[in-house]
Amino acid sequence: MNASIIAIGSEMLGPTRVDTNSLKITSALEDFGIEVSRKAVVGDRLRDLVDEIRYCSERTDIVVTTGGLGPTEDDLTREALIEAFGLKTEIDQTIIDRIEKRFAARGWKMPEVNKRQAVVFTGQTTLKNERGTAPGFHLQVKGKDVWVFPGVPHELEWMLETYFTPWLQQKAGARKRHRRVLKIVGLTESGVEEKLKPYYDAHNHEPLTILASGAQIELHLIADDPAANAEREKELLTIFSDKIYGFDSDTLEAVIGRMLIERNATVSVAESCTGGLLSSRITDVAGSSAYFMGGAVCYTADAKMFIAGVDPALIQQYGEVSEQVAVDLAKGVRRRFRTTYGIGVTGIAGPGGGSEAKPVGTVHIAVADFDHYEHRRLFWPMTRAMFKWFATQSALDLLRLMMRRAASTIESRSSGGSITST
Amino acid sequence: MNASIIAIGSEMLGPTRVDTNSLKITSALEDFGIEVSRKAVVGDRLRDLVDEIRYCSERTDIVVTTGGLGPTEDDLTREALIEAFGLKTEIDQTIIDRIEKRFAARGWKMPEVNKRQAVVFTGQTTLKNERGTAPGFHLQVKGKDVWVFPGVPHELEWMLETYFTPWLQQKAGARKRHRRVLKIVGLTESGVEEKLKPYYDAHNHEPLTILASGAQIELHLIADDPAANAEREKELLTIFSDKIYGFDSDTLEAVIGRMLIERNATVSVAESCTGGLLSSRITDVAGSSAYFMGGAVCYTADAKMFIAGVDPALIQQYGEVSEQVAVDLAKGVRRRFRTTYGIGVTGIAGPGGGSEAKPVGTVHIAVADFDHYEHRRLFWPMTRAMFKWFATQSALDLLRLMMRRAASTIESRSSGGSITST
Repeated sequence: MNASIIAIGSEMLGPTRVDTNSLKITSALEDFGIEVSRKAVVGDRLRDLVDEIRYCSERTDIVVTTGGLGPTEDDLTREALIEAFGLKTEIDQTIIDRIEKRFAARGWKMPEVNKRQAVVFTGQTTLKNERGTAPGFHLQVKGKDVWVFPGVPHELEWMLETYFTPWLQQKAGARKRHRRVLKIVGLTESGVEEKLKPYYDAHNHEPLTILASGAQIELHLIADDPAANAEREKELLTIFSDKIYGFDSDTLEAVIGRMLIERNATVSVAESCTGGLLSSRITDVAGSSAYFMGGAVCYTADAKMFIAGVDPALIQQYGEVSEQVAVDLAKGVRRRFRTTYGIGVTGIAGPGGGSEAKPVGTVHIAVADFDHYEHRRLFWPMTRAMFKWFATQSALDLLRLMMRRAASTIESRSSGGSITST
Repeated sequence: MNASIIAIGSEMLGPTRVDTNSLKITSALEDFGIEVSRKAVVGDRLRDLVDEIRYCSERTDIVVTTGGLGPTEDDLTREALIEAFGLKTEIDQTIIDRIEKRFAARGWKMPEVNKRQAVVFTGQTTLKNERGTAPGFHLQVKGKDVWVFPGVPHELEWMLETYFTPWLQQKAGARKRHRRVLKIVGLTESGVEEKLKPYYDAHNHEPLTILASGAQIELHLIADDPAANAEREKELLTIFSDKIYGFDSDTLEAVIGRMLIERNATVSVAESCTGGLLSSRITDVAGSSAYFMGGAVCYTADAKMFIAGVDPALIQQYGEVSEQVAVDLAKGVRRRFRTTYGIGVTGIAGPGGGSEAKPVGTVHIAVADFDHYEHRRLFWPMTRAMFKWFATQSALDLLRLMMRRAASTIESRSSGGSITST
């Protein structure tokens, strides 16, 4: 069984917008092992729409369309379906009543044009839309299943859940496929592939989706049987060990948040070249105020000294971008904010500010707890935005690894509150 | 004249990746007034590819394909073109030589499979690729122009610039269309449309593209004649005045950077609910270390007092989320970092932490200079990520407006360095 997806709307044929609705539909189909063999975007032109619908229904078992169901003259999906499949229509008064009620609830009168949305296909299934005015349709024509959905994302999502997934489940014999995502940090894509070689060999090179983006790698396991995924996952955990930071929808910052809460620990940040991004990522997590006490963005030597308490002698001797200053930033901010952990980041994002000894892309990262610290020196000569992201990724990872390693010691659970703040 | 675009590659038919190459191609076509009437994504299957290429070349004057030109068995674009158009092929030895040289430069031997990339079409134009190993093609078949490009984004970009745009320029008679983008902050999309009514009426409702995203609105003017755009721009500047913060590729943070440099001024930030995002956006601009002196992320009352110098009595009396504390954050951080301007942000991002008097979504923003301050109270009950972004957008805008208003006063150019730091 295979499927095709048609996104309808001229606005998606311009240079600024892409169709992302199809990803949600693909995800639902893939859950049941149904392959998407083509996707298309067509504008609001009747001829193009009719041709496209016919072309897809001749080639795939399932056709899914989104968009073009609104009340205006631009919305031609209905007309195209009528012409493509020779369908008959009728007016569904219950839809007019529903739309009138929606308008009345806001104290408005339903515009006459909205009546177009009550045109349904005789003998076919109309799908009520509780999130908006445009109903959807499930058509069965010439042995093919054609699903017609509105293009507004939150309306589409509701309709997929309410009508499409249950139908797929039945159609595919409840063989919903299971997806498990393992998330890796601290390795490159080729580093991951290198490590995977024995795994591939052991499993006859069965496919495993590897997705790399933003300094992290995802491994996607898909199977009909969750036990098969669990088996594979165990093997991959052995291969990648603590490089796997989380699963499924986990983010690195959310995982760190959970670990801090489990340990009754807190964190603060003194960052230079990442310019606030590290604090911002930590505070992207709802509830982070429970463990994030604050941060200092130290773009100058003065700020490093006066705000994060870095020893001026260290800056003098080693320069602002050095292991010593990164460590003193971590220790200093930890004291200032009285936290269990302090993170220090200093480096050269570029494009200016580099030298031969310390080229653009150099970054020092340190994490300190009450009695020790760890440090990483890294080199990422890339765009400013990527540099900032990679550096925060590495800083969060260093904190994660320190917490893992300290997991069994009592000390790591002390709040650090006994240390005198300056 | 119209065009269609085919993105080739099974990886773009999964639930995680979209084709974005087509946006670059669309942008080039639109510059010359050529409409894209359809876009498609097809997997690496010969039958599907052949059908798709035929379908598009029957319907549009120009067909552009990306991807499927690599050396492996999955890469079937060549085979599909041969079958779709009945083309003959030959080996281009100069391509083998080039690829061998590329490998040799890294000390490697060219794998045998790469020889496939030297297969070119007899009597058609081969496009050398200086950014990679896969050449592209310009085919002229049955009166249609078929452009075949690699899918790697930076290779595609180079090829579009080198071959495609010059050809379009010639084809369209050098009628390159001109695009001018006006960027608006501080208005909603419906607010912009309201203000545009008289403009639409005056110009017979001629189209003007309005794009809203991330708490800003873009107005896109497109014309064959740049003078026409300049004329329209003047009118729009009268309508929107200082709500227009910049043009074309400007970002709000970059505009603010330029304004600070022009005024020989500096800025620092004390932010609570935005969690570092405000500092991070300011430091996204290359060269921001010239005017950004640092920031404090004050997630606790203690941090607000000890790091940003907020008066504890104000917190006691008005609470952490209040106009008074926002203003004292701005003033305090300005003193601490000895900057011309200080920005203070305090609010409730949610989902927790709200109350009846101060519900989730409440935010106070203040900007202080040496002798006065301005304050905004805003209410954005939305997701945490959106709340953070909207709040930074408003804070940057407040700084921008203060600088504009102070543009004529000498005081605004003082660096603030004479103020005693505490």
